[in-house]
Amino acid sequence: MTRGVFITLEGGEGGGKSTQVQLLAHALAARGIEVTVTREPGGAPGAEQIRALLVNGETGRWDPLSEALLHYAARREHLRHTILPALAGGRWVICDRFADSTMAYQGYGHELGREVIAALHDAVVGDLAPDLTLILDIPVENGLGRAASRGGEDRYERMDRKFHDRLREGFLDIARREPRRCAVIDATGTVDEVQAAILGAVHQRLGVNVP
Amino acid sequence: MTRGVFITLEGGEGGGKSTQVQLLAHALAARGIEVTVTREPGGAPGAEQIRALLVNGETGRWDPLSEALLHYAARREHLRHTILPALAGGRWVICDRFADSTMAYQGYGHELGREVIAALHDAVVGDLAPDLTLILDIPVENGLGRAASRGGEDRYERMDRKFHDRLREGFLDIARREPRRCAVIDATGTVDEVQAAILGAVHQRLGVNVP
Repeated sequence: MTRGVFITLEGGEGGGKSTQVQLLAHALAARGIEVTVTREPGGAPGAEQIRALLVNGETGRWDPLSEALLHYAARREHLRHTILPALAGGRWVICDRFADSTMAYQGYGHELGREVIAALHDAVVGDLAPDLTLILDIPVENGLGRAASRGGEDRYERMDRKFHDRLREGFLDIARREPRRCAVIDATGTVDEVQAAILGAVHQRLGVNVP
Repeated sequence: MTRGVFITLEGGEGGGKSTQVQLLAHALAARGIEVTVTREPGGAPGAEQIRALLVNGETGRWDPLSEALLHYAARREHLRHTILPALAGGRWVICDRFADSTMAYQGYGHELGREVIAALHDAVVGDLAPDLTLILDIPVENGLGRAASRGGEDRYERMDRKFHDRLREGFLDIARREPRRCAVIDATGTVDEVQAAILGAVHQRLGVNVP
């Protein structure tokens, strides 16, 4: 059986990732592709328990390196129980955040640096990489405004403005370093416009026509 | 202020570590030394929440690498909130299990190998090392018998015999690799005999006479 295709959606707050994950999954399913939709942190039983530690509580509750370790522990469970079995079964996996978020949030945003995150990544994920990573890019003020208007702000949305500037730059730097894997999507448009840009990137990068 | 002294007690199941931690702390306190007694996994608020994920549930619940990552996340919190402030304040820290347990359980017992655990250790702990590590050594059958008779067996006590053989060998190998830091204590004797051996090692290695 052919291995499935692994697509990740990444970016800061308020870029519309979760909506676009659902729209992409529906578009692929309409083309007859079997799709697994999942998210990080989480996506497997142990990983969801770790998620509960990560998303609740005060800003600054965890040391950034502890946070990176928890994300990688959750990622290991997610890969083992959800992502790898789905890909091995020929399914496409669409994941709302993956390893680039740890690099961007902890490596760039919290300034742990690339090296320590890369060392964790090598130990836990090894050579596996998404076939396509869509980085939904939006100016920081727009993204935070959108996230606030939707309510339910989380710990990251309360971080300071400089953090979010480093975060956006981090995602763009990741895209510059791995241009074959990453496509930067302008996420300032309407939901339909962003969806069209995503389907265009899926067509261009993966050779799949999505209706 | 002089930095405090960091002592860890290590070893497999049923070696009497927890009892000896208390006895050593009392002996040091009787000599006027300010002592912080702590344990891993745990010893800080976030670390205790991670502990709850680690010690509950079925054997084999976590992938061994996820488990190592969770231990190091907890260790980071423990160092930052408990161990380093106590040492900086001149207190002696007596810790029931520390990094050697991750190396022995996940590296040797679960056969992840030394390299991946060492890479995690470098990233999280860096150059900090205990001033003295007391490895309570006991033949596997004795230790498991003691642990079972005390009731409340935990996940590790249900692992197979070969696992416990690799674990014991792992601790002895760690001691062989770092003979200046590690003292192997014969833990087959009575509580008083083991305590005497520990106080002897503290005297010999650290130059402190404990009553």
